[in-house]
Amino acid sequence: MERKRIGIVGATGYVGMELLRLLCGHAGFRAAPPVSKSHAGRPFSEVHPAFRGLVDEPCADLDPDWLAAQCDFVVTALPHGVSASFVPQLLDRGLRVLDHSADFRFRDPAAYEAAYRLPHPRPDLCAEAVYGWPERYRDRIASARLVANPGCYPTASLLAVAPLLAAGAVRTDGIVVNAVSGISGAGRKAETPYLYCESADDVRAYAMAGHRHTPEIEQEMSFLAGEAMRVTFVPHLVPMKRGMLATVYLEPRSPVTQADLRTLFLDFYRSEPLVRVLADGSTPSTRSVAGTGFCDVAPFLDARTGRIIVLSAIDNLGKGAAAQALQALNLMAGFPETEGLRLAGLAV
Amino acid sequence: MERKRIGIVGATGYVGMELLRLLCGHAGFRAAPPVSKSHAGRPFSEVHPAFRGLVDEPCADLDPDWLAAQCDFVVTALPHGVSASFVPQLLDRGLRVLDHSADFRFRDPAAYEAAYRLPHPRPDLCAEAVYGWPERYRDRIASARLVANPGCYPTASLLAVAPLLAAGAVRTDGIVVNAVSGISGAGRKAETPYLYCESADDVRAYAMAGHRHTPEIEQEMSFLAGEAMRVTFVPHLVPMKRGMLATVYLEPRSPVTQADLRTLFLDFYRSEPLVRVLADGSTPSTRSVAGTGFCDVAPFLDARTGRIIVLSAIDNLGKGAAAQALQALNLMAGFPETEGLRLAGLAV
Amino acid sequence: MERKRIGIVGATGYVGMELLRLLCGHAGFRAAPPVSKSHAGRPFSEVHPAFRGLVDEPCADLDPDWLAAQCDFVVTALPHGVSASFVPQLLDRGLRVLDHSADFRFRDPAAYEAAYRLPHPRPDLCAEAVYGWPERYRDRIASARLVANPGCYPTASLLAVAPLLAAGAVRTDGIVVNAVSGISGAGRKAETPYLYCESADDVRAYAMAGHRHTPEIEQEMSFLAGEAMRVTFVPHLVPMKRGMLATVYLEPRSPVTQADLRTLFLDFYRSEPLVRVLADGSTPSTRSVAGTGFCDVAPFLDARTGRIIVLSAIDNLGKGAAAQALQALNLMAGFPETEGLRLAGLAV
Amino acid sequence: MERKRIGIVGATGYVGMELLRLLCGHAGFRAAPPVSKSHAGRPFSEVHPAFRGLVDEPCADLDPDWLAAQCDFVVTALPHGVSASFVPQLLDRGLRVLDHSADFRFRDPAAYEAAYRLPHPRPDLCAEAVYGWPERYRDRIASARLVANPGCYPTASLLAVAPLLAAGAVRTDGIVVNAVSGISGAGRKAETPYLYCESADDVRAYAMAGHRHTPEIEQEMSFLAGEAMRVTFVPHLVPMKRGMLATVYLEPRSPVTQADLRTLFLDFYRSEPLVRVLADGSTPSTRSVAGTGFCDVAPFLDARTGRIIVLSAIDNLGKGAAAQALQALNLMAGFPETEGLRLAGLAV
Repeated sequence: MERKRIGIVGATGYVGMELLRLLCGHAGFRAAPPVSKSHAGRPFSEVHPAFRGLVDEPCADLDPDWLAAQCDFVVTALPHGVSASFVPQLLDRGLRVLDHSADFRFRDPAAYEAAYRLPHPRPDLCAEAVYGWPERYRDRIASARLVANPGCYPTASLLAVAPLLAAGAVRTDGIVVNAVSGISGAGRKAETPYLYCESADDVRAYAMAGHRHTPEIEQEMSFLAGEAMRVTFVPHLVPMKRGMLATVYLEPRSPVTQADLRTLFLDFYRSEPLVRVLADGSTPSTRSVAGTGFCDVAPFLDARTGRIIVLSAIDNLGKGAAAQALQALNLMAGFPETEGLRLAGLAV
Repeated sequence: MERKRIGIVGATGYVGMELLRLLCGHAGFRAAPPVSKSHAGRPFSEVHPAFRGLVDEPCADLDPDWLAAQCDFVVTALPHGVSASFVPQLLDRGLRVLDHSADFRFRDPAAYEAAYRLPHPRPDLCAEAVYGWPERYRDRIASARLVANPGCYPTASLLAVAPLLAAGAVRTDGIVVNAVSGISGAGRKAETPYLYCESADDVRAYAMAGHRHTPEIEQEMSFLAGEAMRVTFVPHLVPMKRGMLATVYLEPRSPVTQADLRTLFLDFYRSEPLVRVLADGSTPSTRSVAGTGFCDVAPFLDARTGRIIVLSAIDNLGKGAAAQALQALNLMAGFPETEGLRLAGLAV
Repeated sequence: MERKRIGIVGATGYVGMELLRLLCGHAGFRAAPPVSKSHAGRPFSEVHPAFRGLVDEPCADLDPDWLAAQCDFVVTALPHGVSASFVPQLLDRGLRVLDHSADFRFRDPAAYEAAYRLPHPRPDLCAEAVYGWPERYRDRIASARLVANPGCYPTASLLAVAPLLAAGAVRTDGIVVNAVSGISGAGRKAETPYLYCESADDVRAYAMAGHRHTPEIEQEMSFLAGEAMRVTFVPHLVPMKRGMLATVYLEPRSPVTQADLRTLFLDFYRSEPLVRVLADGSTPSTRSVAGTGFCDVAPFLDARTGRIIVLSAIDNLGKGAAAQALQALNLMAGFPETEGLRLAGLAV
Repeated sequence: MERKRIGIVGATGYVGMELLRLLCGHAGFRAAPPVSKSHAGRPFSEVHPAFRGLVDEPCADLDPDWLAAQCDFVVTALPHGVSASFVPQLLDRGLRVLDHSADFRFRDPAAYEAAYRLPHPRPDLCAEAVYGWPERYRDRIASARLVANPGCYPTASLLAVAPLLAAGAVRTDGIVVNAVSGISGAGRKAETPYLYCESADDVRAYAMAGHRHTPEIEQEMSFLAGEAMRVTFVPHLVPMKRGMLATVYLEPRSPVTQADLRTLFLDFYRSEPLVRVLADGSTPSTRSVAGTGFCDVAPFLDARTGRIIVLSAIDNLGKGAAAQALQALNLMAGFPETEGLRLAGLAV
């Protein structure tokens, strides 16, 4: 495997850290010195002592020329709105970019502008960017210049419903996505609600007026279904650092059995290396995917009401962010898709 | 307030402990020596050192005559099936009983037998027993000989939907109850799945083939709606000791506004001392009700889909068990309904 | 019990919240509208929804005249240095004050100035103030105009060593206090190290260059021993909201037995309502004192080395702060010392 | 790297799981089908779903012949006393063994028998076995037939004191080791004290009458010091799954400075790949080593008392068990010592 160099911009946040952690065990990619505007000049391992002896270089400042000189690929983990203007500078210098923000996730810039209340400086790139969902856009990712890494909630939700929507097996008008996330989903922000004493022993729903991942979920569900769709999506925070579980409620178009559901999911994900359809009777568990790029899914028939329930567990920093990014980067670099990702969950 | 004496049978479990804890601050009730078959003869505070200096008596063995001699009321926290045969012995001795098991929650013994797969030894008492939901059966509880304390999931779910079902405001055929519970809901059982290392950092759904609280929820929803109803109910465990959040999805019969919903809930719960309808923009949080008998509820309109979402938070050991029991016992004894229950949540 | 009114200044912090929570069940004290400079005008229960229906008044601004008009007692939970200049204004208006800061804990203003690196504006009050340790200064607290509530680490440490130092049973030159605290000890500060994701799964020592509680511990140990003493004190943070355990290592002056130690502790604390000496074989546990004013202590002889080990558990917000304050306030008001404090720990 | 095959006996416990997890990313070792007496015949990934797609083979039963046919090395994670009689059967079949129990950790069988209250069936092997502490016995491990993996507390404690004892810089008679461990240290045992609801929010010391790791610590400290030594050791449980912090208190033989201490530690560990001496001002943190084989150490001078304090953090399942085992196995197999162990801590 020819070694390729990756620059990580915004490396001191949780997603950046997780990607660096995964790269420590990767045979093909080497990380360039991490880039962090707020910690420029400070050794990365001083900011994050878990990386002592592994990533000791000082953080570099944000500089597209320096990145172009150092890297084959750049991963940007910048706030929404910031990426939109920074990423084009990297593309202009011939770099291939995987962006963690929402700035290039929407095919329709108007949808982005409605959800994020920001004008989009480069609507042209919305058309070019590939939504970095490997199970659906594997080939396009491989050759993309710009990949928009999906949100964590969309990843968990879409993997739960894709087999059903693709088969036309469910009604498109009554889907409910109830999802819970660990606290790291809020990022490394020193804000009161994310303090230990305000998050421990607490479960709370949030964004009841509309989470910005909702239109992202709807965009991809609509593509899958071949028709415009709306979903009800309620995110919750639960007291753990990592982990996400989506519980999705759907109505079959015609009566199905548990065996039908299982067959449908097994067939749909048969060749997917990072999606695991659980055995009957088993339910996904966030700890089983902690620290990994796996998504564990299981469909259930509620015999009482005829409704379908799909459970889907990911690590919000793993398949929901950094591991999914690495899967896409492997595709972009021509490496085996799961290089660095054949990891067992840190279940204990 | 004339002092009344309460016997607690099965006192060393989590519900028994919580009731004893609440009774430490109660002006009217005194606890008789706690009853525990498995710890008979051992000082209660040796089993549970949190009670040192407060409840130091040895645990008494299970003996209906002793209870009849000691107590005005008996609370039974026994396994399902055990209560059904023990409680009648107490009633026969003239005691008034509040039972925590499911044995007397069903008006129809057949529903009980289907859910718990046990024959019911005293179907006659199913008719007599009052479902201990004070917000609905306040008067009947006050004069009851036998009160069946509701399950924790039913309590959270029913308080979420009661205003809507009672008003006929929602369709009865598509209700989804997604609920999460702290680990104490599983009881004090030394089983692998409830070990710290198997529960921390984990969220998992369970009982996908049908939780036994489902028919209990359906019974009371059906009574509210005036027609037989079925719901989809999915319980989950989350890593905290106490707390329960129900997220309920419903479809309005005709279009409603957020203001309509809020008015409906405020009116419905206006006189309820332990149900708090939150201000708009605020969402229930399990830590705000920890250690208390409060239920915090808030209805939301999902403008995108027209669906109604109701959030409802309780402490599964509080309003979901011991505090609700104490509320009923206050009614039974003629004490002020919230005596010993004007507690602030242990939010930190 | 004649009702007395307490003003709480700095009520929205964790100590203020805990005191308000305890006052909800107090027969003698009523809380005046809480005072908070940063949340003035905002309903307290909007800031802390756990208090809905219990403390709904808007927070009052910091105003000594208003406090003098409203209150019999004032509890100040203000930053170090701020109390020193605000408290005298309350005393001047005839109020009796219990102060949670360190500003009046030192008899010698120079010790305060060395530890807190602040000049003391009112050294005269250092002489007058009573260190609010009820087990030692009960009578002086009862008549005090100004009580300085002890720090949490000093409380746990001093209760562990008092019987031994008072009896002259241990060497004064080699004491080690190893202590752990829940995260709430850091206060309600939106700072990165106290985020959920930075505190969960973590244990870390801090203040290795010298914690400000060290000279406070030394002051009181020196008084107990009747000679100037120094201790080695290392505090640690552990992933829980509340709770503190001190593990103290001492050398006996002459050989002792486990039975000697036990007798010494039992005798010393025989009349203390809030210190519980555990039975042999039992060890203090933070969860047994959670939410309470109890301190659980147990001495052990390390037969291998002849050293004495004393374990001491408190709730850092309880006996380590608000419950200890309430104990002192009960004394000041002439109420029974444990009014509102006969609480069972929230062990689950 | 020539591939070697490792059999893991007792693979379904936490240490076995962690070793399997580490082996997933190892270039030289391949895991044989895991051996578990209690789960024989059941697919490993059914017992531990985190291993789906990675370790799906059925668990094999305990059979020395089968192991001899399959493996180059065997790791035994069996209860104390069981290893002593099983391991010889493996050695007799020509296998090289790394044993996780205490059965071969003591050079003197009498010390083992005193600590574990079991007669030792093969005292001859006590002399042959090598204590698997790579930083001290690297060469002997490389050629050993039988390696006894150190206990977690001994590992953290010994790495904290080795530089000081080896240099003769501290008194040998007054050392105190105060240590805390995550709950996984108790193993995968369905016992009440390790339930989530009994461990969360709790810190408690245990084994006050003498922990079995004490004589193990003393054996190796005595070897380092060149004289018989006793220590005071108090272990505590804290509410996290993994992680261990030792806080060690020592008295210098002659006055030292912080700079002296730092130089001593830096020199002593200069060539050690898995021991990180922290920069001044930094303190070890269990989350920085979570999931890794690192030990982070830092010495401090308590200027107030002249005492030395050394902090040492490991993952009790990592450097305290499975990662240390892998380090030793790498040495035994002639692989690079840190193969599979250049991991960043799962700090979030």
